[in-house]
Amino acid sequence: MIVNGKAYRTIWLEGSTVYIINQQRLPHFFEIAALADHQATAQAIRDMWVRGAGAIGAAGGFGMAQVALEAPDDSGFVDYVRRGAATLAATRPTAQDLFYAIERVKQAIEGAANVAAARAAAMAVAQALADENVAAGEAIGRHGAELLPDGTRMLTHCNAGWLGCVDWGTALAPVYAAKRMGRRVFVYVDETRPRCQGAQLTAWELLNEEIAHAIVPDNASGFLMQRAEIDLVIVGADRVAANGDVANKIGTYEKAVVAHELGIPFYVAAPLSTVDPHCPDGQHIPIEERSPDEVLYAYGLLDNGQLGRVRIAPSQSAARNLAFDVTPARYITGIITERGIFRPGNILEALKS
Amino acid sequence: MIVNGKAYRTIWLEGSTVYIINQQRLPHFFEIAALADHQATAQAIRDMWVRGAGAIGAAGGFGMAQVALEAPDDSGFVDYVRRGAATLAATRPTAQDLFYAIERVKQAIEGAANVAAARAAAMAVAQALADENVAAGEAIGRHGAELLPDGTRMLTHCNAGWLGCVDWGTALAPVYAAKRMGRRVFVYVDETRPRCQGAQLTAWELLNEEIAHAIVPDNASGFLMQRAEIDLVIVGADRVAANGDVANKIGTYEKAVVAHELGIPFYVAAPLSTVDPHCPDGQHIPIEERSPDEVLYAYGLLDNGQLGRVRIAPSQSAARNLAFDVTPARYITGIITERGIFRPGNILEALKS
Repeated sequence: MIVNGKAYRTIWLEGSTVYIINQQRLPHFFEIAALADHQATAQAIRDMWVRGAGAIGAAGGFGMAQVALEAPDDSGFVDYVRRGAATLAATRPTAQDLFYAIERVKQAIEGAANVAAARAAAMAVAQALADENVAAGEAIGRHGAELLPDGTRMLTHCNAGWLGCVDWGTALAPVYAAKRMGRRVFVYVDETRPRCQGAQLTAWELLNEEIAHAIVPDNASGFLMQRAEIDLVIVGADRVAANGDVANKIGTYEKAVVAHELGIPFYVAAPLSTVDPHCPDGQHIPIEERSPDEVLYAYGLLDNGQLGRVRIAPSQSAARNLAFDVTPARYITGIITERGIFRPGNILEALKS
Repeated sequence: MIVNGKAYRTIWLEGSTVYIINQQRLPHFFEIAALADHQATAQAIRDMWVRGAGAIGAAGGFGMAQVALEAPDDSGFVDYVRRGAATLAATRPTAQDLFYAIERVKQAIEGAANVAAARAAAMAVAQALADENVAAGEAIGRHGAELLPDGTRMLTHCNAGWLGCVDWGTALAPVYAAKRMGRRVFVYVDETRPRCQGAQLTAWELLNEEIAHAIVPDNASGFLMQRAEIDLVIVGADRVAANGDVANKIGTYEKAVVAHELGIPFYVAAPLSTVDPHCPDGQHIPIEERSPDEVLYAYGLLDNGQLGRVRIAPSQSAARNLAFDVTPARYITGIITERGIFRPGNILEALKS
């Protein structure tokens, strides 16, 4: 997508350096960060400089390419790759794309005849994974745009836009596709506490693409649905279980229940790399619990123009910070994939199609 | 309730000055503000130095006493009272207690034989209104405590504690009563964006009363309910319509729908002064829309120890800020009043009982 007149992906590899748009600095500062080795890439995933299932997946793939490039030529190669894969996999527990990408590159490395071939294969597969994510996003946009006639008022939660992928996005890809077809879509953006990816990232994307939107507190979108000011909901996914249950950013479950209660269509948009066929249902998806400080503080731009934080809560209060929740398949109208829109219960058929 | 070893109400009258705990400075600074005249009291309501249905009601009553004390002795008295009542009523549109209190003091003034008697009546009725709120809170606590056996894990939204009333509170009064009976109650506190009355005020109250609690993002409480980590929900109310529909802080509706879906009891706690028998249903309750800045920024304690704010969203993004929502009566298990617990559909009977 375009930023300041120039086309960007969220992540790319040059030589052995991974470059990312540093999402910790958005929307206030647009900066590219250079990650010199796979340890730096792992840290960037852990600290959410790069976040969103698709972007994390690409980071895992490029991180594995870095591992192959860094590994010693000698008999230590195999062990270095094993440890590098473990380091990258330990950064975040919920997003399926991360494990999918690490595994795909690892298999390519293991299938190579020698170290040089392994390095070439790792770089080729990592690049292919990123390219596949872009192609999937574009196809998701094409299929999803059918749900967005001119004048649609859509709600989204968190950031499942191009920043959360390599390009295009998942939940926002249909909006970008509809825009290119000349349709007006108004997007209500849940701010998405505690990290405010809606207010910070989704709003920034929509501004750059000149799409009309309003940020709302997470508390408000249910009432907007009740007041019939929202026509449909589209969110992303961090993992789709075999039965169609979906793990996504905390708060997704509440929106799905309210939408279901009111008869408002609730769609999940995700590439098939997000589907985990080995995970039978949502109860088996590990849910990351992050630092309470993300709840006790809010982060943003200070009046002096620096990034900073304010403490919201009393100094002695505790907080809990579950990063994701699980939406049972029965609340989901459909899952928009690169192969079309599937009922959640049929998502395994999409993998075979 | 006790703060730093001393008993306080949230609001009181001394001479012609209204004193309040300045809730804009909590939880970081505990300060009493002096409001010299009814204009200052109106401003304090509008700017939420004093907030919460019960506390706003008391402020409206004491503000009317100030009006009577300030009004000229001559024929301008009646007109001054009329204009003062209008000023106070125009501060916030949703909380029924405000209009109830203003009307009660106004009627006392109008029923008096002369100006001196009117002033005495205004002061007496304003004081009686505050005392009634305290007594109602204490009785709500007694009735509501029956719902809280030892070990209960309760969720509350916003602040319907003693800060939102004159003392005791509504949703939190049962917790304080249960504590005095030796029962342990754990309280999950929705932070309650955008103004974070949960993280800032409810958590502060619970700390002072030494009640175990955890602040959670508003997004997380639905998932905690799904995971069976919450036994029941108690919230306050800003207005109860004749059919039992309830206006309360934005986000209440979502919690009620999720609780209903999961079979978790959902109670509203409110004194009968919050019931508006002339309002047929929730659709007729005016919903305040406040400044978008409350959504675009977060407010709290800077690292330098001063109060300040951070901008969360991009500088050009718009926001919507509905301050309240409406929960239909069918999602409400019961309304805890000073006269006992009523089914929402029977709330008018409570007024007559």
